[in-house]
Amino acid sequence: MNYKLVFHILGLILRVEAVLMLPAAVIGLSTGRDGTAFLLSAAITLAVGQALVMLPGKNMKMQARDGFAAVALCWICLSLFGALPYVFSGVLPNYVDAVFETVSGFTTTGATVFTFMEGQPLGVLFWRAQTQWMGGVGVLVLALALVPKLGEGSVFLMRAESPGPIKSKLTPRVGDTAKILYSIYIGLTAAEILCLRLAGMPWFDCVIHAFTTISTGGFSVKNASIAAYGSLTIEWIIIVFMFLSGINFALLYYAVCRNFRAVFQSGELRSYTLMTVGASALIVLNLVCHASWALDARTVTDSVFQVVTLMTTTGYMTYDYVLWPTFSQVVLVLVMFAGGCAGSTAGGIKQIRVVLLMKNLRREVQRILHPRVVTTIKSDGERVDEPILSGITLFFFAYILLLLIGTLVVAWDDVGFTAAFTASLTCISNVGPAFDILGPTGNFFALSNVSKLFLSLNMLLGRLEIMPLLLLLFPSLWRKR
Amino acid sequence: MNYKLVFHILGLILRVEAVLMLPAAVIGLSTGRDGTAFLLSAAITLAVGQALVMLPGKNMKMQARDGFAAVALCWICLSLFGALPYVFSGVLPNYVDAVFETVSGFTTTGATVFTFMEGQPLGVLFWRAQTQWMGGVGVLVLALALVPKLGEGSVFLMRAESPGPIKSKLTPRVGDTAKILYSIYIGLTAAEILCLRLAGMPWFDCVIHAFTTISTGGFSVKNASIAAYGSLTIEWIIIVFMFLSGINFALLYYAVCRNFRAVFQSGELRSYTLMTVGASALIVLNLVCHASWALDARTVTDSVFQVVTLMTTTGYMTYDYVLWPTFSQVVLVLVMFAGGCAGSTAGGIKQIRVVLLMKNLRREVQRILHPRVVTTIKSDGERVDEPILSGITLFFFAYILLLLIGTLVVAWDDVGFTAAFTASLTCISNVGPAFDILGPTGNFFALSNVSKLFLSLNMLLGRLEIMPLLLLLFPSLWRKR
Repeated sequence: MNYKLVFHILGLILRVEAVLMLPAAVIGLSTGRDGTAFLLSAAITLAVGQALVMLPGKNMKMQARDGFAAVALCWICLSLFGALPYVFSGVLPNYVDAVFETVSGFTTTGATVFTFMEGQPLGVLFWRAQTQWMGGVGVLVLALALVPKLGEGSVFLMRAESPGPIKSKLTPRVGDTAKILYSIYIGLTAAEILCLRLAGMPWFDCVIHAFTTISTGGFSVKNASIAAYGSLTIEWIIIVFMFLSGINFALLYYAVCRNFRAVFQSGELRSYTLMTVGASALIVLNLVCHASWALDARTVTDSVFQVVTLMTTTGYMTYDYVLWPTFSQVVLVLVMFAGGCAGSTAGGIKQIRVVLLMKNLRREVQRILHPRVVTTIKSDGERVDEPILSGITLFFFAYILLLLIGTLVVAWDDVGFTAAFTASLTCISNVGPAFDILGPTGNFFALSNVSKLFLSLNMLLGRLEIMPLLLLLFPSLWRKR
Repeated sequence: MNYKLVFHILGLILRVEAVLMLPAAVIGLSTGRDGTAFLLSAAITLAVGQALVMLPGKNMKMQARDGFAAVALCWICLSLFGALPYVFSGVLPNYVDAVFETVSGFTTTGATVFTFMEGQPLGVLFWRAQTQWMGGVGVLVLALALVPKLGEGSVFLMRAESPGPIKSKLTPRVGDTAKILYSIYIGLTAAEILCLRLAGMPWFDCVIHAFTTISTGGFSVKNASIAAYGSLTIEWIIIVFMFLSGINFALLYYAVCRNFRAVFQSGELRSYTLMTVGASALIVLNLVCHASWALDARTVTDSVFQVVTLMTTTGYMTYDYVLWPTFSQVVLVLVMFAGGCAGSTAGGIKQIRVVLLMKNLRREVQRILHPRVVTTIKSDGERVDEPILSGITLFFFAYILLLLIGTLVVAWDDVGFTAAFTASLTCISNVGPAFDILGPTGNFFALSNVSKLFLSLNMLLGRLEIMPLLLLLFPSLWRKR
């Protein structure tokens, strides 16, 4: 590993994080609560970042391994420093709790250890939402847009941080692609703030919820999440923006450019839409036919909202789905596996992988029928290379493996199989709430420190799509070059 | 598909099944209960089998697709006809229940719809255990040993029916390999009958439990399963024979031939042994340190017994593990995924696949470190081809996919997530008992017919390792050649 280069990037990122703590500091100072906690955290982060940047020596040549390692280490450090304001302000005195909350923020998971939201300092609420907004499209991509001197090495950083097996480069230059993505991101956020405001939500809540919708994070300022507003209009606005945020941003860009053919051709978007509609219909069917729910706007909205919030891995709630029949709950668990589209802010396995896994399985069976025919697999008309296909199936294996290991770790806290399994799933898929006692009205506070740390790790694994963090386990990475 | 050939094989197999119903008929007649039910079933099965064999036309040329289709259809027909005695004798008046019990028998799963074992007719108990013994190494392999005229086409039948991704041919001729396997199988069964008898078990119970241990089936004649005997000696005898039955029979053959080098070199056996010891140790640790169990022979035996019985996918019980803490239960769930060795009678994903998946994942991460190095993966010193590796990862995906679909189907019965998930897992892994209300003291009787049929399908999918049954879904298979 090129230590100098990785430390340099680490330093740059921490400096950016220190600056990004200032809005929360301003809010804290103006409301007279915890402003100093943010100023102190920013100062410490800035000092460490500056020290790393100023380390002597320069060798800016980046290889794939350096990019992956830098991304993994940056996300870990960002979380460790981002946790400081929670501790200094005293809202989360246990540092492990603070790290869990910060990782949950940056990875846009939305699982929380707060037992009560109402009455928390506004600066803390803002910082919490802001971590999700920053984590949404990637903190490093942001840094790249600001610090262009890494040159072509930045392609490795982007490859490691952005989700999905196939990277769509909208423009030849990485920096330009990042700027387009950020424009869409900021545009969506602004549009949602306006819509929510028109629907009657207070300004502060509008900003928070827009931050955590577009990043598919799911942190709220209310204990009851979106249910607290009791407004169908607000719920449908949020459904639409969650759904949009789960779509590949490249497709959103094409739509803005009126290239609708590319949008309608996308197999991933089709699968994503079909799964959303299908899962919602199954839940409505289950609630109305099997249980005793009435077939009205409330039932339909609750079903669609819960499907979209869990499938886009946002994690708001308008109904405590733990009270639904088992079938509806299992439908929700299944959409948590799949997640949104690649190249969006959503987590999970991603729709494109599900589509390609199904095509690959189909080909495997067909090989028995036609042993001598060699077939290639296509995605939206383009051939997918075999190494990518085998990478996807191995990714699936790693996903399930880490999910099961997480289940085992959380199980030590004796919370029951359902809670342990879904807690691990909700973290690796970056969703937020789990099931049973860790459902949407519960929280992760009661878990042991070991469970919280391992779930934090699972959130990072899910967000960075496993490989960069697994790489850290290989001793040969740490050898100096 | 070569219909004539497939029907011919189907007819042969049904004739064999009819003959194999006779021992139960004799027991039924001599005890004065339900002998006629077995005679009637045998007559119907024989008549249908004879009619299929006598269909005009002959074209004995077999292709891979015919072999796979024949195996899938044979297992389905065997189950449909094998269910007749339960219905005719009146012990299971619902035909779906009878099919579930028969599939559970042939696939050596051991999940049951009987709510009470004591007092059932001896003929029925014998037939139930005998289906497991027949299913253990494969009914078709048995037929091949008896009906040698299929020639080289039989290699496709064996490939489709015998478990594991890499087939070990002990001898050049399929028939000879089958005979060696059967000798080991019969030898183990006889040895266990003797050991159990010496430990004081009644003769009839010895035969039944030997049949269902060596096949890793798990049907018992007692409600309380092996716990009913209250003997540590009996439990350890069964632990040893379950463990042996989960080992690749080729390795057992080498051990008999004193080729111990091949045995100790086996990475699969190492992984199997390590997982058994590790899982048992984790459960003892959990029970003693976390809960309030005493560290004595009873606790250790119960831990080892439950690990071995679920990992070899047998499914006996000596303790209702649903009462254990969550951690111990999750350990048991994990070993149910892995299962025993390939080429044994055990189900699950199989140890060799787990080993190769881990090696493959490791290589995938190493590719980031050394992008230009091409590495091959070896198993016991021999190179594993890439198509086999990608087949294994796709198998893993299909396994999890079918597990989740099964969970969804069973969830409609509103049994809770844990019961639905583990019911689907226990069936596709051919284990037997599940968790929660479907635990070892419960049974599958209360589930709906749809759930029972789908779980039966999952048992068949698990036993035949998915591909032969998925093949039946392809319309081009059904085209006449």
